[in-house]
Amino acid sequence: MELKLYYSPGACSLASHIVLEELGFPYTAQKLNLLEGEQRKAEYLKLNPMGRVPTLVVDGKPLTENPAILTFLGGAFPKKGLWPKETWEQAMLLSALSWCSNTIHPAYAHVIRAGRYTDDSSAQESVKAKGKEMFGEYLKMVDGWLAKTPKWMMGEQYTVGDPYLLVFYRWGNRNGFPVKSLANYTRHANLLLGRPAVRKVMADEGITLD
Amino acid sequence: MELKLYYSPGACSLASHIVLEELGFPYTAQKLNLLEGEQRKAEYLKLNPMGRVPTLVVDGKPLTENPAILTFLGGAFPKKGLWPKETWEQAMLLSALSWCSNTIHPAYAHVIRAGRYTDDSSAQESVKAKGKEMFGEYLKMVDGWLAKTPKWMMGEQYTVGDPYLLVFYRWGNRNGFPVKSLANYTRHANLLLGRPAVRKVMADEGITLD
Repeated sequence: MELKLYYSPGACSLASHIVLEELGFPYTAQKLNLLEGEQRKAEYLKLNPMGRVPTLVVDGKPLTENPAILTFLGGAFPKKGLWPKETWEQAMLLSALSWCSNTIHPAYAHVIRAGRYTDDSSAQESVKAKGKEMFGEYLKMVDGWLAKTPKWMMGEQYTVGDPYLLVFYRWGNRNGFPVKSLANYTRHANLLLGRPAVRKVMADEGITLD
Repeated sequence: MELKLYYSPGACSLASHIVLEELGFPYTAQKLNLLEGEQRKAEYLKLNPMGRVPTLVVDGKPLTENPAILTFLGGAFPKKGLWPKETWEQAMLLSALSWCSNTIHPAYAHVIRAGRYTDDSSAQESVKAKGKEMFGEYLKMVDGWLAKTPKWMMGEQYTVGDPYLLVFYRWGNRNGFPVKSLANYTRHANLLLGRPAVRKVMADEGITLD
């Protein structure tokens, strides 16, 4: 199987990138320079009509959207141990992946890309302010989830969902949100940083938590 | 297994409601009156901390987020035939469910709930206008998907994704978007309306496409 991931350093594609590395399959990671607009070139739009990252190309066929890529990488290779065994746990994890993708990620997008939500530049400040308020609230909600578990988001088992949470922790940390005061989320982030695959991918992307 | 769905008439919970009916299991459908704020009462927030619909309670345990509920209802009961058999097709369907949940649904939320995205009432009109532009574009994208398939969104097989698309068609139709001029999407909506389960659930919710 040929696996090729299109990513941008530190974007939400970081989650899929880490999971690919954890699986231990050979894969290619192709960096897209979003600032130079590589994601809007015709060749890439054929793979991902939204012009976003990540896209995972599997034997020439593109798969988009983090919850789908993470579920595919976890669920299609159950022996790798990154996907819950029980149906109900799978459903709970997918619920969390969906929420990450439709709630916490878009809240951050309102902070850094307010122009996506209004063409009126005078309205952008208030959109950004509301995005900050909501993103901050959601970071606290994640901290609350993690307070209920001794280790990983789903309990004892490390799953494809854990690296996804690291993406938002890092975004918060880099944008002045007091994530280091969120004890459970910080413990979780440090656990992730203890994993060789996480450190390798962050080095490959050229990023840190700061 | 005891199944109870919390829904609001015509909300995105319609998709989960239709799929429950299609499965043929006994279930309870519990209407929440969003205008009266029933979704923000403490009892409901215990089930769904975001105060949104749908929530599916399975033997007393709550599951939230449409992509997770639809995947659970489809994937956990494969003999009912509402979930693709092949792993790759499952991944493609989950990608579409994710996109519906993180892209087309939030675009509509900017149209009807602009106050969720800015506290500045003078900024709301431009947020609403941009939401309209994007929701309209996304409806056309769905029409483009459906142009490539002879029947249902995944091809010959009716899946849990099809009723989700009907939700947005109806929202568009009720809010002045020219969905009836989208030939493929209209054909798809009419196919859905030909199904007894779809008609029964719409009657139970007290809604039509208008």
